[in-house]
Amino acid sequence: MANEAQSYFIEAVLERLDARAVITDDREIEPWISDWRGRVHGQTRAIIAPSSTDEVADVVRLANQHRVPLVPQGGNTGMAAGATPPADGSAVLLSLRRMNRIRSVNAQSRLAVAEAGVVLETLHGAANEVGMRFPLTLGARGSCTIGGLTSTNAGGTQVLKFGTMRSLVAGVEAILPDGSIHNGLSALKKDNRGYSLDQLLIGAEGTLGIVTAVALRLVPAVAARAVAWAGVETPQQALELLRFLEARTQSIEGFELVPQDSLELVLRHIPSTRGPLSEQHPWHALIEATTSDADHDISGELEHLLGQALEEKIIADATLAANEAQAEAFWKLRDSISEAERAEGQTLAHDISVPIADMPNFILAAAAEVERAFPGVIASGFGHLGDGNIHFHVRAASHAAPGWYEEEGAAITHMVDDLVTAAGGSISAEHGIGQLKRDEFARLAPPGRIHALQAIKHALDPLGIMNPGKLVP
Amino acid sequence: MANEAQSYFIEAVLERLDARAVITDDREIEPWISDWRGRVHGQTRAIIAPSSTDEVADVVRLANQHRVPLVPQGGNTGMAAGATPPADGSAVLLSLRRMNRIRSVNAQSRLAVAEAGVVLETLHGAANEVGMRFPLTLGARGSCTIGGLTSTNAGGTQVLKFGTMRSLVAGVEAILPDGSIHNGLSALKKDNRGYSLDQLLIGAEGTLGIVTAVALRLVPAVAARAVAWAGVETPQQALELLRFLEARTQSIEGFELVPQDSLELVLRHIPSTRGPLSEQHPWHALIEATTSDADHDISGELEHLLGQALEEKIIADATLAANEAQAEAFWKLRDSISEAERAEGQTLAHDISVPIADMPNFILAAAAEVERAFPGVIASGFGHLGDGNIHFHVRAASHAAPGWYEEEGAAITHMVDDLVTAAGGSISAEHGIGQLKRDEFARLAPPGRIHALQAIKHALDPLGIMNPGKLVP
Repeated sequence: MANEAQSYFIEAVLERLDARAVITDDREIEPWISDWRGRVHGQTRAIIAPSSTDEVADVVRLANQHRVPLVPQGGNTGMAAGATPPADGSAVLLSLRRMNRIRSVNAQSRLAVAEAGVVLETLHGAANEVGMRFPLTLGARGSCTIGGLTSTNAGGTQVLKFGTMRSLVAGVEAILPDGSIHNGLSALKKDNRGYSLDQLLIGAEGTLGIVTAVALRLVPAVAARAVAWAGVETPQQALELLRFLEARTQSIEGFELVPQDSLELVLRHIPSTRGPLSEQHPWHALIEATTSDADHDISGELEHLLGQALEEKIIADATLAANEAQAEAFWKLRDSISEAERAEGQTLAHDISVPIADMPNFILAAAAEVERAFPGVIASGFGHLGDGNIHFHVRAASHAAPGWYEEEGAAITHMVDDLVTAAGGSISAEHGIGQLKRDEFARLAPPGRIHALQAIKHALDPLGIMNPGKLVP
Repeated sequence: MANEAQSYFIEAVLERLDARAVITDDREIEPWISDWRGRVHGQTRAIIAPSSTDEVADVVRLANQHRVPLVPQGGNTGMAAGATPPADGSAVLLSLRRMNRIRSVNAQSRLAVAEAGVVLETLHGAANEVGMRFPLTLGARGSCTIGGLTSTNAGGTQVLKFGTMRSLVAGVEAILPDGSIHNGLSALKKDNRGYSLDQLLIGAEGTLGIVTAVALRLVPAVAARAVAWAGVETPQQALELLRFLEARTQSIEGFELVPQDSLELVLRHIPSTRGPLSEQHPWHALIEATTSDADHDISGELEHLLGQALEEKIIADATLAANEAQAEAFWKLRDSISEAERAEGQTLAHDISVPIADMPNFILAAAAEVERAFPGVIASGFGHLGDGNIHFHVRAASHAAPGWYEEEGAAITHMVDDLVTAAGGSISAEHGIGQLKRDEFARLAPPGRIHALQAIKHALDPLGIMNPGKLVP
């Protein structure tokens, strides 16, 4: 039955769209049916790749008619398998890759309109060409797309100053599940005509419609940056340092917490790395300050403020990167933590948030509790302290068996998620729910919230054709 | 029937809440059943005024049980009669006024948690006491409440820099229509656990639940401000001036457009007013720059920038307020426009937005078109040019009959709303839909949007007990 409906659907799509829009060759499909980390494997008979908003609307209308579920996909770089089709082949992949035009970039109005399939790095380049900047960035910038970033409300390393996608999206164009076009691209700064469909679509992981284009806010290009590394005694001191800096300047754009243990792993496993400070410290902060004003002495300002923080004994030591190469080297220490952990052994990652003020205590208390309950493991938190969002990683004991990740790992994740929930936090700060976190979400969310999400999903997508099996428990 | 259900409901509420929570005296009810502008008159048998979140949850559960619709109300200062009960007495007023605690104000985390009934001015004071500021403000600040501001996504005069409530709300606590409590007060900066109920409740005008408390972002207190008045030839030049300033400073916080015609009305009707500039100009800009840094010479900076703008012929003339009294006098000119118009005769107000870059042309073209179609009327736009949001006012011809507002007025509003919609704009930039704009919203919104709003409303409030007859067509 499903197969028959799919055949009619694909035939109908081919009648309306040109042949390039329908991919049925298994070798071309294969790279797109497993998630980025290679954990979840799906099946699909075809990839539909429309090249315009109207074509996406056509495809959605046909999917309605033939009751064929669609799994929207951008760069397939998600961390929760939200763009991976079901294993039973019941859905068809809808790739937005061919919708890759930047419709406009306007330095005056500080807005760009990019189609869903535009790669983040391409948008960075286009903004840069007009002296502006799209400030959100993350590791997958060379592959991830604007549609996926919007549908997962992506974050990254510059959230501290500019927020997640939710803050940067000025308007959304999307095909709603009934095939109608929602056009929010006027990017009105003020508009109070009822519920914000834009906001509902941001972070909906394609379960309420297909994002086809997005209006995005731009900020002035960076004229200069200063990067520093500071040693502190505790995560609390790191947060104090951030508060100290933020009270004195608006230039702080990145602030990452790094435990000594993580730094040691990086120095051990990653070639050509060295610690920035001469002495050891239990915790470290990587600080980036930027300015769009060429006359602003950002290095001098950051150096002065760190000197003050040293005098006030908020930090134990600090050093400013002397040049861009050193700045990159500092960032490499932070960005290599996951790679160094993998080189060391099995590691379990949790992408969590709690209220920012509670994070320093949470990191210490949760790590102690996990290490007590699971002897031999090493737990630690690193990352976006200023956003209340850290990567809480748990490394297997050195004697752990190869199956540790699947066996003890599940129990550890339960414990971490319980601790996060008890602290009023989120078990998914950045990565979304997708397939991988749906069970934990269902286990821990208040019933009223689950019910509300199910009601909204069913109301807007009564046939269940929009990314079934994702996000909503 | 309705009466009987209401009796049982009120009885049940009295069993759970103390007597002060139920008001049935007509004299006490009377001030709250007409809208702020006195245009819409409703009826209700009782006002229920719970004093805690749990009590609101109880009331909503009982309303479910007895199928009694609730109309939530804060300061009753709305502009679209969204808090006015239906005229047939079928609903009960739910006043949040007794929920007026400020639960926390934290300068370190830059967050305050205020209950729905807290008056805006009270929150301003509480933030100020800890050296911080809640930056949203508007004329009704002495009466309007945090719950109402959230439920209407209120704007005001500082939106240019800080955005509407949507940008300032860090988390919402609300009672959903089924009586469950949604608690978003952890105010997580990053949280990707599915659809944002916070964002859905902001601007929902109480049709999807009752906002009981809100976590709000604070910013550093203002150390100094500079206020200036500039004369320009066209609205386009005013926008150029704004872009010129924004490219050179981050201090611009207010930027209001004033046509000469409006200024003349103010000088004619409002005592103790005088024009800031010696010569006449077709258009004017009122500019406010602020700084939180006591060492920042904000007056010097604004004076210097306006000097440059004068040299580059963006503006024809400008003057800086010499002191606070003069700054207040400049603002009084802007704030008195509506009052001066009322003194002059009948005026029809439209609260509209279009894309910011299109606003200068829109103002001129729409005014010309309206004046051509309705001979004798005078149309003009003033207000928040930098947000793409102006008050588009149409004054009756001097010979207009007393019924002009209701008769020709409706046709004029149709025309303005058509022009706004054709320009991709919003027929309600600030004030919401409520009762007053529901017909126009229904007439002009795309059917897909109306359908989506109806589906969401019905899904979350299947019994229709949340502010029936408001917002959703």
